Amino acid sequence: MGEKKVSIGNVAFGGKEIVLIAGPCSVESEEQLLSTARVVKKEGARVLRGSAFKPRSSPDAFQGLGKSALEFLQKARSETGLPIVSELMDTSQVNALAGTVDCVQVGARAMQNFELLKALAKTNVPVLLKNGLSATVKEFLQAADYLSKGGNKNVILCLRGIRTFETETRFTLDLGLVPALKKLSGLPIVVDPSHAAGKRETVPALAKAAVAAGADGLIIEVHPEPENALSDSAQQLNFSEFQKIVPELNAVAKAVGRKI
Amino acid sequence: MGEKKVSIGNVAFGGKEIVLIAGPCSVESEEQLLSTARVVKKEGARVLRGSAFKPRSSPDAFQGLGKSALEFLQKARSETGLPIVSELMDTSQVNALAGTVDCVQVGARAMQNFELLKALAKTNVPVLLKNGLSATVKEFLQAADYLSKGGNKNVILCLRGIRTFETETRFTLDLGLVPALKKLSGLPIVVDPSHAAGKRETVPALAKAAVAAGADGLIIEVHPEPENALSDSAQQLNFSEFQKIVPELNAVAKAVGRKI
Amino acid sequence: MGEKKVSIGNVAFGGKEIVLIAGPCSVESEEQLLSTARVVKKEGARVLRGSAFKPRSSPDAFQGLGKSALEFLQKARSETGLPIVSELMDTSQVNALAGTVDCVQVGARAMQNFELLKALAKTNVPVLLKNGLSATVKEFLQAADYLSKGGNKNVILCLRGIRTFETETRFTLDLGLVPALKKLSGLPIVVDPSHAAGKRETVPALAKAAVAAGADGLIIEVHPEPENALSDSAQQLNFSEFQKIVPELNAVAKAVGRKI
Amino acid sequence: MGEKKVSIGNVAFGGKEIVLIAGPCSVESEEQLLSTARVVKKEGARVLRGSAFKPRSSPDAFQGLGKSALEFLQKARSETGLPIVSELMDTSQVNALAGTVDCVQVGARAMQNFELLKALAKTNVPVLLKNGLSATVKEFLQAADYLSKGGNKNVILCLRGIRTFETETRFTLDLGLVPALKKLSGLPIVVDPSHAAGKRETVPALAKAAVAAGADGLIIEVHPEPENALSDSAQQLNFSEFQKIVPELNAVAKAVGRKI
Repeated sequence: MGEKKVSIGNVAFGGKEIVLIAGPCSVESEEQLLSTARVVKKEGARVLRGSAFKPRSSPDAFQGLGKSALEFLQKARSETGLPIVSELMDTSQVNALAGTVDCVQVGARAMQNFELLKALAKTNVPVLLKNGLSATVKEFLQAADYLSKGGNKNVILCLRGIRTFETETRFTLDLGLVPALKKLSGLPIVVDPSHAAGKRETVPALAKAAVAAGADGLIIEVHPEPENALSDSAQQLNFSEFQKIVPELNAVAKAVGRKI
Repeated sequence: MGEKKVSIGNVAFGGKEIVLIAGPCSVESEEQLLSTARVVKKEGARVLRGSAFKPRSSPDAFQGLGKSALEFLQKARSETGLPIVSELMDTSQVNALAGTVDCVQVGARAMQNFELLKALAKTNVPVLLKNGLSATVKEFLQAADYLSKGGNKNVILCLRGIRTFETETRFTLDLGLVPALKKLSGLPIVVDPSHAAGKRETVPALAKAAVAAGADGLIIEVHPEPENALSDSAQQLNFSEFQKIVPELNAVAKAVGRKI
Repeated sequence: MGEKKVSIGNVAFGGKEIVLIAGPCSVESEEQLLSTARVVKKEGARVLRGSAFKPRSSPDAFQGLGKSALEFLQKARSETGLPIVSELMDTSQVNALAGTVDCVQVGARAMQNFELLKALAKTNVPVLLKNGLSATVKEFLQAADYLSKGGNKNVILCLRGIRTFETETRFTLDLGLVPALKKLSGLPIVVDPSHAAGKRETVPALAKAAVAAGADGLIIEVHPEPENALSDSAQQLNFSEFQKIVPELNAVAKAVGRKI
Repeated sequence: MGEKKVSIGNVAFGGKEIVLIAGPCSVESEEQLLSTARVVKKEGARVLRGSAFKPRSSPDAFQGLGKSALEFLQKARSETGLPIVSELMDTSQVNALAGTVDCVQVGARAMQNFELLKALAKTNVPVLLKNGLSATVKEFLQAADYLSKGGNKNVILCLRGIRTFETETRFTLDLGLVPALKKLSGLPIVVDPSHAAGKRETVPALAKAAVAAGADGLIIEVHPEPENALSDSAQQLNFSEFQKIVPELNAVAKAVGRKI
């Protein structure tokens, strides 16, 4: 457990409870989002994720639904009561998102988008800050400093792996950094097993390992039909896979003196 | 030589001539910039570099002079006739820079700032696009696609090394990528030996090697007093070091059928 | 659980039980080894480790006690009944070790010592094969093929992390490879949290995470006085740290349907 | 130029002359080796390379002709006068090679085969020591220390690139390490553009860059029919490619005050 607690909506990170954040990679339609929100809530997720704006390596890839996705997220929150987290990529999106969602995610490719960090530092919106693909621990903490020294203390760190030569997993996730980051920052640490694994069959093992390593939360991609997803098709869990994983995570959580 | 030529001001990249871009890492004062501009022009540089806005890992580090630096750059251009290149970090800076400088630099940490790329795609300002620290060749070319498919064909690729375990050099620069990128993209390829080396005594060897490998240009940091520089102190060349390197580069250029 | 079971002495790897291998990095004296063997056995370790021959980056570092260490290992086995595993580095050591120890360890730097693998392939001694620091999963499995296709099927794979730019941990251990390797090879998978962590305070988190990820065994360095150890001083657990970790590991093991 | 000169046969490394080592990856037949030896000698190579024992990732790959290859190498030396360099992988090969060839190569995967280094330290045979795929500069120099502190000062360092996430080139070669290694060790530095590039069309650029960066020698794979080679098929130059590259290298050498 971290020294500092940070809340998304009414859900606290950094206490005894390990928080599940779940939802689709991209918001693709109202029905897709709502059906997923209902399932993940029922299974024990406490926060809903879903991207409206997508950073994509290729300009030809699906770029997100944008503002209509934000509307669907708000509907899902109204119906389920789950607070919502969504990614932003640019300073021009700060006002739109900071007033709408309960937490903004700064993705790996934006971890050193310093103007974005400075703009978020002037708000109070909780920030889920993911490590850059080639960022050292020192640089990750310096990026968090842009937020906290700039005035926004509501920072949650999210480990999602780094890029290495290994391609059997999509990214290389070092869970030894969970206790290291917690000690160095005192901040809550969330782990993203979906992006690290890159394929759904590896997600459960990494998720359980993250809980055992001391993570304060997990962010897991869940989709009604992963095989038809517009992004991250290979790594999103379907509903039954998510239903299966939660009690397994809970068992590991209890083994380390915590709970989901 | 690349198939496509791109010009910064009246200086063409991708032809027989290998273009030297030189100047301080950060614009620190009018005098610092002007004195450097005069020297690098005299020695053979064709474009002046200098950052007004600095992406820094730590929020406590010097962040650049901002708009006053842009004024100094314009003065330096007026006096020396050298076109100017300066870095931008955020969509909010596009209008200020695109109308002022002759080329905007997108740094390594912004290579996948897709909103910035989209905004620059709607201008015609030449873009010096540096590779991300963990970007593959494929991703580097996809970032360039955001510009060219979005409408701005004035793209120059800049190799500056990637992050690896090796710390003897600051970044790991693979010059085998010069011919590979040229073949795959047809774009002019500039090499940044200063950031790759990270220490001034290694810059000459890497610069000469880049010319031998087929680079269409070099971007080299030069400062009147590197030991007192506000950023990148260890890697900037002083005036006499720059004076010494240019004829050496020219000799290698001639050996591969080109010229500085 | 892997498809194939491999035994060291009478201890099976790849079944429901997760096996603890523990002991000092280097065998430094009879007393050091015996005192450690007694403690780790009492706490639940099933196999004793201890290096007689040490691969050291510097020629000035302690190189191991050699043959006298092998005698101490045999004494420790006689007294405690624990089978012993020790590292070998060269074909010239195969006969001495294969007849003496219950399992030979091929370290990261020898994973692609193909002559050594060929020599071990002609024996039946169980081999604990560690991944090379820059070996891909494919190369790791090909190294195992040198053993199994050469006639020695008694292969246990050991994950110990790879080298990356991150230095907060000594090596970067991707536990997503545990299920991947198990699926691809069918072999038992042991994880080495000590070398991956590089500092003792990180070992427990990584060890628990490895169990949660599905490891069939752990190899943990334990020393009576780590601060005075002749090698790997920072990462060896002392007796009380080892005593504390075992019930924690057992709890996680039970949570994933297994036991220590 | 390095401070220390080391000779292979009567060919000195570390002086004004940049030495070309050339020949096939593997010795495949007497005719293959002799025809290559004649061509590379005629074009300006001063040392002949050719492997008798091959370290191969897969046990199913061609493992080298072994002793008969050593006979062919001796014949080629007799006929052409070129001293010969060949790789060894294990202590058991030291006597056979040290008495036969003029220089033994320790490959990347054996750079930290410390028993092999200790055995070679007791001979006077010149050693071409390649950097390991994940070795730091410090570890590379420590491996050289095993030789020189052990009594064999005839060490030539060979840079061949490291493993990174980039796959456009086979390995990632940082030529900034040429001056760094020369300064730190004083030893002659040879560069291997063939393995770094991994494809023949990239070899010329890297080879010229290495000369410009200050290399004291190059080791280049040349084969009569690369498309039919039993190893490293993609990266070996054919005769006409080698004939074309030598004058280009000579031109760059002259530009940096040296010669081939």
